[in-house]
Amino acid sequence: MKKFINAVADAGLESLRGFADAHGDIVTLNEEPLFVARRRRAPPGKVALLSGGGGGHEPLHCGFVGTGMLDAACPGEIFTSPAPGQILAAAQAADSGGGTLFIVKNYPGDVMNFEMAMEAMSGHHRSVLVADDVSGRRGPSSAALDEAVAEGCRGVAGTLVVEKIAGAAAEAGGDLDACHAVAQRVSARTRSIGVALTSCTVPAVGRPTFALGAAELEMGVGIHGEPGRQRRRLDSADAIARDMAQAVAQGLDLSEGDRVLMLVNGFGGTPLMELWLMHDALRRALVPWRIQVERRLVGNFVTSLDMAGCSLTLTVVDDELLRLWDAPVHTPALRWCC
Amino acid sequence: MKKFINAVADAGLESLRGFADAHGDIVTLNEEPLFVARRRRAPPGKVALLSGGGGGHEPLHCGFVGTGMLDAACPGEIFTSPAPGQILAAAQAADSGGGTLFIVKNYPGDVMNFEMAMEAMSGHHRSVLVADDVSGRRGPSSAALDEAVAEGCRGVAGTLVVEKIAGAAAEAGGDLDACHAVAQRVSARTRSIGVALTSCTVPAVGRPTFALGAAELEMGVGIHGEPGRQRRRLDSADAIARDMAQAVAQGLDLSEGDRVLMLVNGFGGTPLMELWLMHDALRRALVPWRIQVERRLVGNFVTSLDMAGCSLTLTVVDDELLRLWDAPVHTPALRWCC
Repeated sequence: MKKFINAVADAGLESLRGFADAHGDIVTLNEEPLFVARRRRAPPGKVALLSGGGGGHEPLHCGFVGTGMLDAACPGEIFTSPAPGQILAAAQAADSGGGTLFIVKNYPGDVMNFEMAMEAMSGHHRSVLVADDVSGRRGPSSAALDEAVAEGCRGVAGTLVVEKIAGAAAEAGGDLDACHAVAQRVSARTRSIGVALTSCTVPAVGRPTFALGAAELEMGVGIHGEPGRQRRRLDSADAIARDMAQAVAQGLDLSEGDRVLMLVNGFGGTPLMELWLMHDALRRALVPWRIQVERRLVGNFVTSLDMAGCSLTLTVVDDELLRLWDAPVHTPALRWCC
Repeated sequence: MKKFINAVADAGLESLRGFADAHGDIVTLNEEPLFVARRRRAPPGKVALLSGGGGGHEPLHCGFVGTGMLDAACPGEIFTSPAPGQILAAAQAADSGGGTLFIVKNYPGDVMNFEMAMEAMSGHHRSVLVADDVSGRRGPSSAALDEAVAEGCRGVAGTLVVEKIAGAAAEAGGDLDACHAVAQRVSARTRSIGVALTSCTVPAVGRPTFALGAAELEMGVGIHGEPGRQRRRLDSADAIARDMAQAVAQGLDLSEGDRVLMLVNGFGGTPLMELWLMHDALRRALVPWRIQVERRLVGNFVTSLDMAGCSLTLTVVDDELLRLWDAPVHTPALRWCC
C-alpha cells in the first residue's frame, strides 16, 4: 500500500485537520464528537442542511460545507457510517431555528444511524435519501425515487447535486417543507453510473478491495468498490462512454428535449486530463438522446480513495432547479459566485 | 496501461475539447494552431499574460486562463513543448495593446520555443522564467532566480503562484514593466520540492516512466518523472513532510517571521484525502522555522499524468504580494471572488 499516511487509525482525523486548516476561512472542525460546520453562523430561521457518511469519498461531504450548500457534515471512519451521536451534535451545532434537512446516501448503515439521530432530536426535521446509482437496476425505469431506494440503489455522485440545489433553496430562505420537496425532486431526477479501472485500497486492509486484471474494467462499480453490473475487457473511452450514457439515459427514461445537468466525477486516482477526455466522450455519447446539456461539472468530487475511474451523473432540470444550481456557492470544494 | 483514452495521438486534443466544453463560459479553444484563450476579451491596454508547456500537467496551464490570471495558454503534446507558431498565434489573439508577459517554466525546450516566438513578435513583450524546484540545488541558497535558472532548476508547481500573482497585477492595470517586476519577484521567492510514490505512465510509451519498488519513494522528483535527489524507503507522512519542509525552507533561506503562501499540490493520482493529510503533516513540519503561513492552497493543480505523489511550494510574501494573491480570480481550476 503506497499512501501518504502515518498510523492507519489516525488517517481520517489528520486529513480532516489538514482540511480544516486549509479552509479555516469557511469551516471549523469539531473533533469530539467529530463534525465539520460552517465558520460563520447561518442567519436565524434558515433551514440547516446536514449530511455525512463514511470517509474516503473526499471532498464529499465536508468539502461541501459553506454558504449555499451544507451547514454541517459528519465524517465516519473510512467507508463507515458516522455514529448517531456525531450526527446529533452536528445538528445541534448547525441549528438556526428553521429546522434541519438531512441528506442521506442510501446505505443501510447511514440510513440506520441518521434515523437513530433523528429519533433523538427534538427540533423539526426531515430527510431525503439519495439512491442515484443505476447499476443495480433491472431494465428501464421511471424516475420513482421510492422504488430506487427500495431496490437498494446506492447513493453516489448525485449526492453533490442534491446538496447543491437543496443548499441553494435553504440559503434563499425556503422553509423546511420547501427545501425537502426540492431535494426530493432532485434526488428523483438524478441517476449515475460508475466505472473502475482499478480498485481502491482501504488503509486498514492494506490491499486492493477487489482484483481487476490488467485489461479489465468494472462497469457499474460502487464508491466503496462494490461489484458492478459487468466485469469486462478494457475498452476505448468512447466505448465505455457509450455504455455509461446508455445506462444513465435508461435510468432516467430520457426523452428528446430533456434539459440536464451533467457531472463527470473522478474516483480519486484519475487525473483531470482523463476526466476532461471522458467528458468529451460522454457528451458525444449522449448526442443520440437529443437532450439539452444545460450545465457541466468535471472533477474529483465523490471519490473512492485512490480508485482510478469515473462516473457520469445526469439530473433532469427545469428553470427552478437550474436557477438553484446557478445560485452562488462558496465551499472548499465547490464555488461559483461572480 | 489503464487510462480513459481513445487513440493515443488524439488524447491531448480530445481532453482539451472536453475541457473547453465544460468551461465554455470562461475559455475558448482554438484548434489550429492549438491554444486556449479567454472567452471574453480583456479591456484595451491590459497586459496580456501568456503561458504554456507540455500537456500532462492539467489543469496547468489551460485551467488557469480567465479573469485575474492568464489571457491564453498553449498546450504542447504530452510532456512536449508547444511550437513557436502556437505561441505566436496565442499572443496575437490575446493582445490587448498593453504588451505581453510570457511565463515560462525553465526547461530547455520551453525556453527555446518561447524565445523563437518572441523573436518573431512585433509587439512589446517580456518574459519570466520559473525555476522553483529545489531538488537539483546543492545546499542552502539565497533567493537568486538567475542562479536557479542557470543551474537548470525546473519550473514546477510554483508556476501557479507566479501566474496568479502576475495575473492579478495585470488585471489591476499594471503596465508591462510592473507586471514583469512582480512576476520576477514571485519567481525569485518561490521554491518547491516533489515526492513520488509511483511513476506516471506516458500514453505514447504505455509503461511507467521509471520503476519504483513497492516500498520505495522518489524524493525530489520532477513533474515529468525526472529523477529526484534520493530514492529511498517509503516512510510515514510525517517523515516525508519533514524532509520536504527542510528542503524548501533551505532553498528559500527562511528566517523566523517570514510570511509565506503554502501550496500542497497533488501529482494527479493522489486523492484529496491524502493531500489534506500531507498539508497537516507539512504545516506541523514547518513549525520549527517559526514562519507565518498566511494562505494555504491544497489540490491537484500541477500534475504529472497519473503519478501518485505531491509537492510542497512556499512563496515568501509581503503585503503587496498577499493583496495580489487575494485578488479575485475566475478560471476553470482556480477561483475566489466573493
